[in-house]
Amino acid sequence: MLKVAVVGASGYTGIELLRILHCHPEVAVACVTSERSAGKTVAEIFPSVRDCYTQVLEHLEPVRVADKADFIFTALPHQAAMEVVPTFMKLGKKVVDLSADYRFRDPAVYEKWYEPHMNPEVLAQAVYGLPEIRRAAIAEAGLVGNPGCYPTSVILGLAPLLHNGLIDSSSIIADSKSAASGAGRGAKVDTLFCEVNEGFKAYGVASHRHTPEIEQELSLLAGKEVTISFTPHLVPMDRGILSTIYAAYTGDLPVEQLLELYNDFYSNEGFVRVLPPGAFPSTMHVRGSNFCDIGLTIDRRTGRVIVVSAIDNLVKGASGQAVQNMNIMNGFPENLGLDALPLFP
Amino acid sequence: MLKVAVVGASGYTGIELLRILHCHPEVAVACVTSERSAGKTVAEIFPSVRDCYTQVLEHLEPVRVADKADFIFTALPHQAAMEVVPTFMKLGKKVVDLSADYRFRDPAVYEKWYEPHMNPEVLAQAVYGLPEIRRAAIAEAGLVGNPGCYPTSVILGLAPLLHNGLIDSSSIIADSKSAASGAGRGAKVDTLFCEVNEGFKAYGVASHRHTPEIEQELSLLAGKEVTISFTPHLVPMDRGILSTIYAAYTGDLPVEQLLELYNDFYSNEGFVRVLPPGAFPSTMHVRGSNFCDIGLTIDRRTGRVIVVSAIDNLVKGASGQAVQNMNIMNGFPENLGLDALPLFP
Amino acid sequence: MLKVAVVGASGYTGIELLRILHCHPEVAVACVTSERSAGKTVAEIFPSVRDCYTQVLEHLEPVRVADKADFIFTALPHQAAMEVVPTFMKLGKKVVDLSADYRFRDPAVYEKWYEPHMNPEVLAQAVYGLPEIRRAAIAEAGLVGNPGCYPTSVILGLAPLLHNGLIDSSSIIADSKSAASGAGRGAKVDTLFCEVNEGFKAYGVASHRHTPEIEQELSLLAGKEVTISFTPHLVPMDRGILSTIYAAYTGDLPVEQLLELYNDFYSNEGFVRVLPPGAFPSTMHVRGSNFCDIGLTIDRRTGRVIVVSAIDNLVKGASGQAVQNMNIMNGFPENLGLDALPLFP
Amino acid sequence: MLKVAVVGASGYTGIELLRILHCHPEVAVACVTSERSAGKTVAEIFPSVRDCYTQVLEHLEPVRVADKADFIFTALPHQAAMEVVPTFMKLGKKVVDLSADYRFRDPAVYEKWYEPHMNPEVLAQAVYGLPEIRRAAIAEAGLVGNPGCYPTSVILGLAPLLHNGLIDSSSIIADSKSAASGAGRGAKVDTLFCEVNEGFKAYGVASHRHTPEIEQELSLLAGKEVTISFTPHLVPMDRGILSTIYAAYTGDLPVEQLLELYNDFYSNEGFVRVLPPGAFPSTMHVRGSNFCDIGLTIDRRTGRVIVVSAIDNLVKGASGQAVQNMNIMNGFPENLGLDALPLFP
Repeated sequence: MLKVAVVGASGYTGIELLRILHCHPEVAVACVTSERSAGKTVAEIFPSVRDCYTQVLEHLEPVRVADKADFIFTALPHQAAMEVVPTFMKLGKKVVDLSADYRFRDPAVYEKWYEPHMNPEVLAQAVYGLPEIRRAAIAEAGLVGNPGCYPTSVILGLAPLLHNGLIDSSSIIADSKSAASGAGRGAKVDTLFCEVNEGFKAYGVASHRHTPEIEQELSLLAGKEVTISFTPHLVPMDRGILSTIYAAYTGDLPVEQLLELYNDFYSNEGFVRVLPPGAFPSTMHVRGSNFCDIGLTIDRRTGRVIVVSAIDNLVKGASGQAVQNMNIMNGFPENLGLDALPLFP
Repeated sequence: MLKVAVVGASGYTGIELLRILHCHPEVAVACVTSERSAGKTVAEIFPSVRDCYTQVLEHLEPVRVADKADFIFTALPHQAAMEVVPTFMKLGKKVVDLSADYRFRDPAVYEKWYEPHMNPEVLAQAVYGLPEIRRAAIAEAGLVGNPGCYPTSVILGLAPLLHNGLIDSSSIIADSKSAASGAGRGAKVDTLFCEVNEGFKAYGVASHRHTPEIEQELSLLAGKEVTISFTPHLVPMDRGILSTIYAAYTGDLPVEQLLELYNDFYSNEGFVRVLPPGAFPSTMHVRGSNFCDIGLTIDRRTGRVIVVSAIDNLVKGASGQAVQNMNIMNGFPENLGLDALPLFP
Repeated sequence: MLKVAVVGASGYTGIELLRILHCHPEVAVACVTSERSAGKTVAEIFPSVRDCYTQVLEHLEPVRVADKADFIFTALPHQAAMEVVPTFMKLGKKVVDLSADYRFRDPAVYEKWYEPHMNPEVLAQAVYGLPEIRRAAIAEAGLVGNPGCYPTSVILGLAPLLHNGLIDSSSIIADSKSAASGAGRGAKVDTLFCEVNEGFKAYGVASHRHTPEIEQELSLLAGKEVTISFTPHLVPMDRGILSTIYAAYTGDLPVEQLLELYNDFYSNEGFVRVLPPGAFPSTMHVRGSNFCDIGLTIDRRTGRVIVVSAIDNLVKGASGQAVQNMNIMNGFPENLGLDALPLFP
Repeated sequence: MLKVAVVGASGYTGIELLRILHCHPEVAVACVTSERSAGKTVAEIFPSVRDCYTQVLEHLEPVRVADKADFIFTALPHQAAMEVVPTFMKLGKKVVDLSADYRFRDPAVYEKWYEPHMNPEVLAQAVYGLPEIRRAAIAEAGLVGNPGCYPTSVILGLAPLLHNGLIDSSSIIADSKSAASGAGRGAKVDTLFCEVNEGFKAYGVASHRHTPEIEQELSLLAGKEVTISFTPHLVPMDRGILSTIYAAYTGDLPVEQLLELYNDFYSNEGFVRVLPPGAFPSTMHVRGSNFCDIGLTIDRRTGRVIVVSAIDNLVKGASGQAVQNMNIMNGFPENLGLDALPLFP
């Protein structure tokens, strides 16, 4: 049994890691930490796990954590992650970091959109943890920067097109919609029930921090610099991201063959489901699962391809993908702990 | 008092007309019809109006309706409207039709996206009822084709840009999101609570019938043929449409001046609210009202302008706009019955 | 025009007062205060009122407020209200207080369930503001303690039974369910969207502070001490309270006559709607309105009467009732500003 | 591997059976039927299972089904179940029936609340499938009548009290609240999104068909005839039932010891979680799991005990309990396929 720690266990990605790991046959959760809830049991914070987790949440002391666990998930805010990850690395632990701190190849990009990076040399060792396009490197990695939720949905939606050079890479617009759990578990007026329910809005228009992360990966896929328009929105629901992606289509495959090309591209991917012609995904059909569902069409009137992808932001967009990475990093079957079907309705 | 009829009163736009007209000081509802609920009182179908409406729903017999009412709202499915509107016209009644039947200048466009048109000569007399761009013609009209919900949000969002030639009209993408009431009150599995709640999806991708309606009006504003990509989505909420609209910006005004231009364009419009720089609308803040809130920014990295507009699909997107049109057609103050503030939360 | 102040305008009852008063023909809002948002405009806090309210929120200085307004709504937390209401009274202003501070006849009861009362002599002048059972006293009052949301729904549901001695007053159980807006607009993890949505729970079981308020009024109606079991619950929706009330039936009227008795009891009440036999209310059909809908049946198998009442917690349960009281205190028609129909859906 | 059939797979309990069985290591789904969707694949009806179930839905021909499967779940409407269950029995198959057809000991009770029973002799062999109070009999049964959702929550909530004679059995009131999935997947106006969302209502007041089922089991526990008041309500959410249960307390244990007694009663039950003093359950914390969470208090002011129990209506209230019964009937560990943690949020 692999002994794992969940550092920052009192947020939504933390509890989701615990939920998923509970059914993982090769893992034992050896340590859970939380600054705001240290001293309480996990079940006091999350009554859903009563009788299933009996651990007490600890203050984060990296050496103590490393003492107890061989594999560490850091589910901390950005900047907080880079304060502890180097210690874990130094102590020989493997880490999947769910913050933004280890997602960028270029520390200057991180600095521009976030803050200065404290340990660029550790950053240089990190692998961007999107298994469908980076599996081999993940398998060798000691540190994985787990992708953001929006980037996961957009990159998986576009990868086959960019890889095959079928769109004008300067024409990409990603209009994304996220459930409220993406906003985290901090107490804020903006995410109160009555401020989210029965409302729909855009935010971070032309300025959201996931933009450079998406652009980094799309550029690598395209083999040239890609700049996109990215607009996130808030949907009054608990879980799910749906991205509607537009690009000028430069290919000549009809839609059926384009879907075939997607099927080929993802033929060995257990978590990507390409839908048949005419079908488009709903977040409802991936809820609670690690699936990414993709549908697309060609808008002949305007010459654009329109791709729609759906994930559960807490699973494939965060904790599920983190476990998938952990599986790869440890040589476990990739779907271990991740084969539950979506919860519908 | 103007005697009005609501034809097709058992759907969501029907009940919304009744709700709004209840507070209209110049109107008396003289007749309500419904095929599926004829013989029942309005309050049996809609308990919300108990003690406020005591009418019995009648079968639709156009001559009888015209006998009782001088102004008629037809809230029927498309095709059903054009079976009765000509009779109302012949009997000298003024009509606002909420279906798609009288929205198109060219019957061939209607035929292409819907079905053949039965009375193109009546269609030729109809005015597209978006007061903010067609007020004078509406004032003279005997028949108004009330705009669709999506078109209202997209056209109002783009009108100042197109009117001033500030965007590349071939680059427009409208990514729209609608509440479930837009799907109507028919009993269908697809719109059951558990099939909508906690889900988000696209539908009618590259094929929705509101596309040609939007294009007709944008083309008139631009002075040339405009073709757009339009993608509607379904949001798990009761009311509201939010449209996120992208276009290549060809102007050179900074965002503050662009907003000023919007403010000028809509300076005499009581129902359009242009938001300050950095602010974007939410459907939550227009719910139950006839407002259209608009925010925008310029995405300097990609050279696009991004406009976000929000309406209540049942009010400014349907019944409220219909009452606004009725007010104009009858010389009433335009906001009569429509000055209630949004219901928040 | 009556100049009114809304003291504590940045909470949900505050914005609801502003929404209702906007359509009140005899009132001008002369002053709005908020400690947490002083210096900002109302529209910055509540974009829904943009262009309709242009006031700047002020710090609460009672004398300044009294200078500007002749009628004052205090929408403050309990204890905060009693710090300012005596000043308003001394300056000759009429006040409707929406907190719990002036609802109790006996300061000892307030002290037991809340905290010590600072001005029992002012409390002694206050009238409990439930118009349907206390209209005459309200008309003469200088200070009205506006009822709690749960008490309004329970008292109106039971008044005809207790008044007519038709139930065993020791057998009453009120099982109530409230929307999330009842929990206020403070930033708390417990009322975040993801902590409320898709969940249903009881809280304050056998200990909620509305219990003594309900008992005070039921005792007055019954002419003897009444003790009840009261259980509030939280429903994942914005607005509405539904109370399901059980009592041993000691009468012998069949259900139709019992409903007749309710109709008689409320025959002059414009805001209470008694439903026909077999019908029960839904919060959906009173949303945004000042209505209280009541349905009931006799459970012959167990000898109990079961009454179900529904209100909008922010309207009849708070701000609408406050305006109703203001109307009565000022000799206005009681439904002024309150005649909008419920928003459905 | 046990070959099972899911008869009536296109409803919410059907898809939930498929979801749960997908992770069951001892089961293979050999046959799925649906009258309304025969000929389609399961994934066409439920996109959530794409790539995981590839079966085609068949028309229900009992002999064919029995040919393919050794264990049969019938998820049909009442009356439809009793048309096929006898055939399955005759062919030596074990059956868990999720309808009401095999839940009653006395066919006269079934006839009074439903319709005449067609095969009382088969009914006589059926065991009421609530494992926590009937495990031994279930283990021997060939036919299990799977309990209703409301009854499961009420009976588990009251069993320790009745078993120990601690309440007045004539004083029981069960006020229950259910999510919308309990209303099934048929196309009805009443369960459209806009008719459920943002509303809360009672239904079936003093007349719901689950009443006699609850009374049957409570009577057996109490050792005497029990009659209750039972009121179901509809909550705007997908999953969950919460029952708030009131009874006159005749015991003298303080609340801590009463909870201890509950803990003892359920000490061997993996799916019942008794909460600590002061804690009450939420449906949110059992969603997607087979848990029943129970909290309680003693209302000293009124002498009543108030018990609150929460389940997922589709899991412990239907398909999860059905799988639990299947496990018992086949000698599998009882939690096989049922050990996933609740999905939160």
